[in-house]
This record gives sequence, structure tokens and C-alpha cells, in this order.
Amino acid sequence: MYDIKQWRHVFKLDPAKPISDTDLETLCMSDTDAIVIGGEDNMTEDNVLHLMSRVRRYPLPLALEISNIESTVPGFDFYFVPSILNSKDVKYHNGQLHEILKTYGHMIHFEEMIFEGYVVRNPESKVAQYTKAKTQLSIEDIEAYAQMANEMYRFPVFYLDYRGTQGQIEELRAAQALLSTTQLFYGGDIDSFETAKKIADIADTLVVGDLVYEDIKKAIKTTKIKERT
Amino acid sequence: MYDIKQWRHVFKLDPAKPISDTDLETLCMSDTDAIVIGGEDNMTEDNVLHLMSRVRRYPLPLALEISNIESTVPGFDFYFVPSILNSKDVKYHNGQLHEILKTYGHMIHFEEMIFEGYVVRNPESKVAQYTKAKTQLSIEDIEAYAQMANEMYRFPVFYLDYRGTQGQIEELRAAQALLSTTQLFYGGDIDSFETAKKIADIADTLVVGDLVYEDIKKAIKTTKIKERT
Repeated sequence: MYDIKQWRHVFKLDPAKPISDTDLETLCMSDTDAIVIGGEDNMTEDNVLHLMSRVRRYPLPLALEISNIESTVPGFDFYFVPSILNSKDVKYHNGQLHEILKTYGHMIHFEEMIFEGYVVRNPESKVAQYTKAKTQLSIEDIEAYAQMANEMYRFPVFYLDYRGTQGQIEELRAAQALLSTTQLFYGGDIDSFETAKKIADIADTLVVGDLVYEDIKKAIKTTKIKERT
Repeated sequence: MYDIKQWRHVFKLDPAKPISDTDLETLCMSDTDAIVIGGEDNMTEDNVLHLMSRVRRYPLPLALEISNIESTVPGFDFYFVPSILNSKDVKYHNGQLHEILKTYGHMIHFEEMIFEGYVVRNPESKVAQYTKAKTQLSIEDIEAYAQMANEMYRFPVFYLDYRGTQGQIEELRAAQALLSTTQLFYGGDIDSFETAKKIADIADTLVVGDLVYEDIKKAIKTTKIKERT
């Protein structure tokens, strides 16, 4: 399925974390819509290429979430390009992107680039620390970022990233209410099918990452959110 | 003419600078396509409202280029919202905008908002100083910003601001070559019809500001770029 608008569930795999062939096969043959390779501050050309080559055995869409220029390699179906809307450092708004465009701009297929208006919510997460994210946000802040993504930047994706904590349902709901064309991605702790279901009732697309490494069976179960009841 | 895509020429008036009724009438009854009210760090609610009420006697489109939240008032046909792509301060990327959306987000008509990917070129200009713009840019930098505006942010406008200096033709040409849907605005010193013509042959829309206050007759002559020869 190569229309990201249809994606309800994706697995996000960290190239720096080991995963067995069996587990990888289980994930790739599950009901998920796609695999996204993305990490924190530990992505390298080597580990990205290695994981890419392992996932490419399976016939499902594969995306790279760009984290740094060194680990951005050709061969993916899509490239997710986050712009951290609540970062205090312009590097994470458009600075890195500017470097990427200067170097690769002439060879990029822009139809493969999916731009994400990204909001980092958990102050304790590594991503909050290295992107210098301002995480003390009210519902009104979240709403303003959602409007910004939907109306002004017209990003295809608005990503609320709670990784390391559980998402706040009322924030998701407030954001979703303001998104007419932009797709709402949720990333954050999912401990069971029930949690996944509750979030997927609001978010358009659920990103399941950590659970893959903690409990593969539970992770696979989260793909069942796609069965409409 | 209420389709900005058709605008070839606009006058930009600074609400902090005095202008006589006669001069204002001459500008508003000229062949220009629109009046934009915009200034540097000196825009206030009072001076914006005052100039707005004077221009509203004339039947041409009137836009406000947003500079700060205090001077952003209702009553304009369009609001130009600059995001300073080469600023070192996130305030001028999306920070101010975030404040505006938090306060007014629920009442904004987004079809009136024209988002500008803005690049400040002259290090000596006030705008460069207060937006903390990184102005040492190569042609490759300009190209990357143009691509960013056109392909990723999908802004309707890419604005190269050379105010206080003359624009560099080769930069304009390089930017224009990468803009397929985004409209290229030029702002900068124009000293004659000939200069205006040279720039308008490349840029989509010419913004004439300072010349209005220096030589009104020459300013009016620049509207003649619209006559295709």
C-alpha cells in the first residue's frame, strides 16, 4: 500500500537495536501498513543500510525517517522529513534540511519526501534533549502547532511524539479537530492492544516502536486496530 | 485583482513613514496591482490602522505584511506571513506565528493568509539585524531555500529581500529556475524603470517600497513593467 493516507499502523524500527530474523519476519508479514526506519541520535549509514537490506526481503512499503545527513541513503520508498516545530534550535526547523538540499537537492525525488510537522512532548526523551524541544505545552500550544501544520505549512503529516510516555488523549483529540488535510501520527508508549485501539480511534496513524523490542507478541497484536468493529 | 498569482507589481508602504494624500492617490490610482503595508520594527496598531483607512478609499487589493502581533489588525484582503528561512532565531521561523495562532487561531480566515518563505539578503538592513538573519549565502544556499519553499513547505511565495541594496540577478535567476508553483517576489532597491524591468523579467512580482519615498514619479514609472513589450 503506497498511499500513506491509508496507513493506519506502522512499525518503527531503530537501526541501532538488534532484532532477530524471526521477529523481523513476523513484523513484516503482519497486518501493519509499513515499516519506518528511524532512531534517535544513533543512526549511521551502516546500520541504516543493514536494516534496510533485511526489510527489503518483504513486500511492504519502507520509509526512512531522516535524522541526520550521514545516514540518509537512497533506496527507500519514502523519506519522512521531520521539522521540529517546538525546537528552540533552528537546526531542527530547517537547518539540517537546508544542508540536505544543498547537497542532494538536485537528485531528490520530491514525491518521495513526506514532510512532518513534528512536536516532541516528553522532556525526558533523548529526542527532546538533542532537538532542544520546548516541551511545556498547553492544549492551546498543541492546537496552534496543529493549525500551523495544516493551514500554513500544509504538511502532509502532523506527528505528536510522546515516546517514553503515554500520549494524552485530550491533546490528540484537540489536534485532530483542527486537522482537515494533514494526517495525525501518534508515536508513544503502547503497552497493549487496548491502548493502541484507544489511540487509533483518534489518531490517523499509529506508530509502534519500543513495544517491538519489549514484547513482540503484544506488538503484533496492535496491528489488529485496523479491523473495524 | 484578487488573485495574487497575477500580481506583477506592488507598492509596499511603511506605516511609520509620512506620505501626502496626493502621493497616496497617485500610487493607488496607478497601474500597480496592490498595496502592501509593511515596515521594519516600527509597526504599531495605530499607524497600521491609520494607513489602512487612507488606502481603503481606493478600489485596489490591500495586504498587510505581518511584522508583530500588536500591529496585526483585521480589515485587510490578505495577510502576508513571512517565515524567515535564514534567521538564526526560531522566533522568526514559527515562534511569532505560534503566538499569533494561539491568540487568533480560532478566528483566522486561512484563505486570506499568504505564507512567505522569506530570505533576508542585506546584512546592513534593519530587518537582517532584528531577525538575526544569516546573510552570507552562496547561490547554492539560495537554491536550497527556493527548493525548500517550493517543494517542502509548499509556500505560495518565495521572497528575496535585498532592501537597501540591489538584487543580484544571478541569484534571482537561480531561485526562479527551481520554483514551479511558488511565486518569486523581489524586494530591494529599484532606482529606475530600467532596473525594475530587468528584475521583473525574472521575478514574478516586484515590490517597490523605498522609491515611493525618494522619488514618487520614478516609483510610478516602475508600474509600466506590466506592459509587455
